[in-house]
Amino acid sequence: MEGEERNEMLVTPWEVRGKVDYERLIKEFGTQPITPTLLERIRRYTGELHIQLRRGIFFSHRDLDVVLDLYDKGVKFVLYTGRGPSGPVHIGHLIPWIFTRYLQEKFNTRLYFQMTDDEKFLVDDKLSLEDTRRFAYENALDLIALGFDPEKTFIIFDVKDIDVLYDIALEVAKRITYSTARATFGFQESTNIGWIFWPALQAAPCFIHAKLTGENVPALIPAAIDQDPYWRVTRDVATKIGYYKPAQIHCRFLPGLGPGGKMSASMPETSIFTTDPPNIVKRKIWNAFTGGRATVEEQRKLGGNPMMCTIFQYYVYLFEEDDAKLAERERRCKNGELLCGECKSDLAERVNRFLEEHRKKREKARDMLDKFYIKR
Amino acid sequence: MEGEERNEMLVTPWEVRGKVDYERLIKEFGTQPITPTLLERIRRYTGELHIQLRRGIFFSHRDLDVVLDLYDKGVKFVLYTGRGPSGPVHIGHLIPWIFTRYLQEKFNTRLYFQMTDDEKFLVDDKLSLEDTRRFAYENALDLIALGFDPEKTFIIFDVKDIDVLYDIALEVAKRITYSTARATFGFQESTNIGWIFWPALQAAPCFIHAKLTGENVPALIPAAIDQDPYWRVTRDVATKIGYYKPAQIHCRFLPGLGPGGKMSASMPETSIFTTDPPNIVKRKIWNAFTGGRATVEEQRKLGGNPMMCTIFQYYVYLFEEDDAKLAERERRCKNGELLCGECKSDLAERVNRFLEEHRKKREKARDMLDKFYIKR
Repeated sequence: MEGEERNEMLVTPWEVRGKVDYERLIKEFGTQPITPTLLERIRRYTGELHIQLRRGIFFSHRDLDVVLDLYDKGVKFVLYTGRGPSGPVHIGHLIPWIFTRYLQEKFNTRLYFQMTDDEKFLVDDKLSLEDTRRFAYENALDLIALGFDPEKTFIIFDVKDIDVLYDIALEVAKRITYSTARATFGFQESTNIGWIFWPALQAAPCFIHAKLTGENVPALIPAAIDQDPYWRVTRDVATKIGYYKPAQIHCRFLPGLGPGGKMSASMPETSIFTTDPPNIVKRKIWNAFTGGRATVEEQRKLGGNPMMCTIFQYYVYLFEEDDAKLAERERRCKNGELLCGECKSDLAERVNRFLEEHRKKREKARDMLDKFYIKR
Repeated sequence: MEGEERNEMLVTPWEVRGKVDYERLIKEFGTQPITPTLLERIRRYTGELHIQLRRGIFFSHRDLDVVLDLYDKGVKFVLYTGRGPSGPVHIGHLIPWIFTRYLQEKFNTRLYFQMTDDEKFLVDDKLSLEDTRRFAYENALDLIALGFDPEKTFIIFDVKDIDVLYDIALEVAKRITYSTARATFGFQESTNIGWIFWPALQAAPCFIHAKLTGENVPALIPAAIDQDPYWRVTRDVATKIGYYKPAQIHCRFLPGLGPGGKMSASMPETSIFTTDPPNIVKRKIWNAFTGGRATVEEQRKLGGNPMMCTIFQYYVYLFEEDDAKLAERERRCKNGELLCGECKSDLAERVNRFLEEHRKKREKARDMLDKFYIKR
């Protein structure tokens, strides 16, 4: 919400720009890195490590160790994450959801998923409540398509479900001063009063399981690290109102297909939406920023640079599960065997195969939506 | 919300103190006085003028003339008022409700009544949501006891009924900046974020009739003048979201039984609660601040001063409907015929008769409460 130099790293719940330095974020936000010891503790329960853990896509946490300590003693946890429905879903949005689905399966636990149609209305002058409501339902189809368990997954549509959130939000809001909210979120004189209250609404699902079931267990929140400020204030309030502090596990942003920056719906040419038809996907991937050289000759001779290549990141995040094959792709790129054309073409095929399957499941989800509504 | 000299007049939605200068309030708040012309326009529809109009208890307005212009042309209006359920109801609370009931009957119109259990929770450190919920239901019995039409009266309990308010509140909140809210309500750095959002919730019932029925008509709000800041911001937003500006008709505060200040639940010895048993009522009235002299002899000789007498105000506001008899009481006081003892004893009898009847209706109201719930 504040004016900064264009190249400066800025990570807030409403804006992410510049080159993101994740080590610096851990320091600045005061979170903990996910250590090999912690990974080993997770592996003990999951049997295998998800690629997003193996590859450090989820890289930081708060109290994940505390949640595991409790779990060791037989205290369960619930998962909580969400989505701001301001437009269609792209692959970057799916990354933490895919990981969340893995956690649900391995730990056999409930997920509360918040669709923040109220927030997106409040923060975007151009969006009506009808717009955000429509996006919320469409986005829910993408979530359901990933295979969440309808018995254990509860999608909270803020406006529709405000009756289950409001009393908890009031308990939270009463304990957050304007001063704290301003310092945490950068609110200004021109900020509307709905937006100022809204952090209490994002806090509420942390405690909804206890309210609905009477079972007081912690919430574990897998989400991109830009949402961290919300949990900082929520954690301060939690114990005052008799609940566990919510724990978090933070992921990196999937890069967009352009030179730098996360995949963002506001830059549609560098984002792959789940509803993009195959030829559009091909075009976007074909125009992507890579680590390739200026000419084929040069690349054959000097090799490419996968570390700065957006295409390679797609293999890392989602489209090459096999670590050996990923290493092989990296090796072939670096020594000039693999040219960008082949690599892009491979990726486009994999993405289109994935999206074709996803869209089938997404259409089936239309009839299942009400199974995921929160029960009262 | 701001520190001021104890004797200074202060009129805010949360605090009223000092001697209230109603002429000055009209100027400072920028409202209009209720003129004889306006009273005549009302009389044309009501046939008679309610004592609270005849006696200037309702003394100020915004857009009452506009509402009557529309009514002349066949556009109806709805009534809206409310209560902050922070404790039991006293006679001061009943004054505008009695007038509202008269308007409902004479104009055959709907009343939306807001029980702000959320607000009272947010602004009072000592009250829990359970406390304000309990007061809200108990207070509703006092309202119903006054004879409101269950077919046309809808009590909104904010927390229970948040689902019908929230979308409208969001539309309002998006259009009120922190800067405006701070200037209007005196919010500070230490104010909690729920309280800052809350004015949008008090605005919502102004527009709920249009939302629920599709019939876009103005709301007329009979209430004490301390609530005026809410309507100022609501009026600025109303036309932007396609509704009529809410109109207001403002009343004076019933004085407490002590020397100066409105009847306030926070000073129980100078307030008569609807649940006070007869002997308590007698004691409170007996201890009241009057316009009497130091000795009986002096009073016989010099007469009393009804203008500074709290007891006399009770006859004016509610307990002597007959203007001639009221004038006679005033005359007898002034010339020393009527002593305070007799006057107090008369009033205690009338108040106890009124309350006995009220409590019977109040108990009957328990079984009718759900008839007054808002329909979805």
